[in-house]
Amino acid sequence: MTDSREPLARFFSVIPAGGVGSRLWPLSRASAPKFLHDLTGSGQTLLQDTWERLAPLSGADRIAVVTGVAHKNAVSEQCADLIPNNLFLEPSPKDSTAAISLAAAILVKREPDVIIGSFAADHVITDNAVFTECVLEAVAVAATGKIVTIGIEPTEPSVGFGYIKSGEKLDLPSNKSAREVTEFVEKPSIEKAREYVASGKYLWNAGMFIAPAALILAVLEETEPELYSKINVLADAWGTETQEKVFEDVWPTLKKIAVDYSVAEPAAAKGLVAVVPAKFGWHDVGDFAAIAELQSGGKRNHLAVLGEVTVLSDKSSGILVSETGRLVALIGLEDVIVVDTPDALLVTTKEHAQRVKNLVDSLKVTGHSEVL
Amino acid sequence: MTDSREPLARFFSVIPAGGVGSRLWPLSRASAPKFLHDLTGSGQTLLQDTWERLAPLSGADRIAVVTGVAHKNAVSEQCADLIPNNLFLEPSPKDSTAAISLAAAILVKREPDVIIGSFAADHVITDNAVFTECVLEAVAVAATGKIVTIGIEPTEPSVGFGYIKSGEKLDLPSNKSAREVTEFVEKPSIEKAREYVASGKYLWNAGMFIAPAALILAVLEETEPELYSKINVLADAWGTETQEKVFEDVWPTLKKIAVDYSVAEPAAAKGLVAVVPAKFGWHDVGDFAAIAELQSGGKRNHLAVLGEVTVLSDKSSGILVSETGRLVALIGLEDVIVVDTPDALLVTTKEHAQRVKNLVDSLKVTGHSEVL
Repeated sequence: MTDSREPLARFFSVIPAGGVGSRLWPLSRASAPKFLHDLTGSGQTLLQDTWERLAPLSGADRIAVVTGVAHKNAVSEQCADLIPNNLFLEPSPKDSTAAISLAAAILVKREPDVIIGSFAADHVITDNAVFTECVLEAVAVAATGKIVTIGIEPTEPSVGFGYIKSGEKLDLPSNKSAREVTEFVEKPSIEKAREYVASGKYLWNAGMFIAPAALILAVLEETEPELYSKINVLADAWGTETQEKVFEDVWPTLKKIAVDYSVAEPAAAKGLVAVVPAKFGWHDVGDFAAIAELQSGGKRNHLAVLGEVTVLSDKSSGILVSETGRLVALIGLEDVIVVDTPDALLVTTKEHAQRVKNLVDSLKVTGHSEVL
Repeated sequence: MTDSREPLARFFSVIPAGGVGSRLWPLSRASAPKFLHDLTGSGQTLLQDTWERLAPLSGADRIAVVTGVAHKNAVSEQCADLIPNNLFLEPSPKDSTAAISLAAAILVKREPDVIIGSFAADHVITDNAVFTECVLEAVAVAATGKIVTIGIEPTEPSVGFGYIKSGEKLDLPSNKSAREVTEFVEKPSIEKAREYVASGKYLWNAGMFIAPAALILAVLEETEPELYSKINVLADAWGTETQEKVFEDVWPTLKKIAVDYSVAEPAAAKGLVAVVPAKFGWHDVGDFAAIAELQSGGKRNHLAVLGEVTVLSDKSSGILVSETGRLVALIGLEDVIVVDTPDALLVTTKEHAQRVKNLVDSLKVTGHSEVL
């Protein structure tokens, strides 16, 4: 490993683009998951928004996307500047450790000192300038040999996210705001969440981290040696003529484990993790209620509309998502969610937005896979 | 006029099939009004249900349908046994007096002693045997020179219907239940409606009446002489080579007036109207809430479904009408109304079912006639 390059020159963006987003059915499907949709009305998809945020940081030629083989064409079309060599395809979903460590292992072979930054393809960030500054700071800290997360300063005691407990400010020259991470904590109860927010020490875990790829792999080697060695076999085969065969044999045997458990938490316990507190607006748009909130910008009695559609709304609020362009008339519905797609229609309310996942589960059970 | 025929031999059914049913948009349209739809799940349309109730009474060759020219083909297709000579076409909607008196005037020329029974094409009757008995009684009473209405015994103090105030029982040989009509009253306040129902004297006005055509025309001649004479000009021209020209000239000049005002009320004031109290289930299915009520048969928390469609309902009640067959998922919606048609989607609640009419009005104003 050479430390001669400037930290930012070592930086390589990785976008894990996985996860169907069941709670966004029938918009989000196995064939067209969340990240392939425009959920903000920006005119481009969440994946494209993510790409656009990262390209100025790492350069478009230094962005990798890790996604399912089924989405190869969609991702290639949406990210016109993606170098084919930087599109890493998963034969099947194997959770975040497999996705991220595969990218880390492939990239570290190309550049032993590479610093990777992992940013989910399906999050919404509303202040790109602040995001950029946070990433720049995180890259600088990562270059000192840390795994650096970006922690969102909570705006409310949410029970929907995990939290990062921050400790002392790092003792680094020209350190702006980075702190040690004492521990990661799971989604809390509302009481705990209130305590966390009141303490001023806790940040939302947005799943973003920036670290030398070699460091991530070193932690993984200790915590999950078998997975680590299989990932190395896969990375060795990547781009060679044995790739197909090796992936066919090895990939199905990979352990499914979230990177939080395999890398982030064990590394934090060893004092290897830092956090850059961030003040930009961040949303994981996990369900339609979240999209409605985001779209209405806090306005009460607002009806958000995504899609090209004529809407007649009489005393109605909530969100309408239209993929069909059919005229939609809503009368007397508060906090309604209407999702109009060519082969399936969902009507519910913001209160029940989380239950969409159960519905998708029951569609699986009842054999309606044609709409999943 | 000859009274030599038996009353039932003189009977001729008339089905006025008009009215768009705005409160049933987007199912009911100008091009496909309420009576052309299956709103009961019977497998046939309201018009066909009406036809089937009347055919055993008058014979299928003695049923006339009065409808708009736009519905000529649909009506002919749905009523395969309709004799073309018995299909009376209105160039434009001119309210019920024009429709019914045109039928009366044409039929009285064919059979001076004809007794016509007028039954709306878009009502639902749930006990055909009782209906048949009521009509038979009404025909017998009509043959004595009366305009006979069928009054529905109220099951609740509805404010959605007009009422018929009944007086003394008619002094006729073998009279079963027919009474004088003292007056017709408009849709009442809830207080008045309660009084009416408590008194036992008031019946719902279902707009059904049976009378010698000559008697209806005689009343009209007195109350609306100009309209009467124009209707006679039209009836004279009907079926001749001048028909088209005469209708083109005269029809647009007809006064729009409901038969209640031109015939029923004035005749009642003269003691010419009788009522047969009826105990069959009757519904004017004026809006989707009424259809939901009808479909659920009084069951609470029931989701009624009209159409061939897969529905996933999680804690939802109300009504779903599907013309598209798309899968529909409803979560946590009480008393919801969802109407899914190829070019328009309506979502509202039973509470707001009446507001659909306002919405249709605003569609007219905003130039969305393509979905009306």
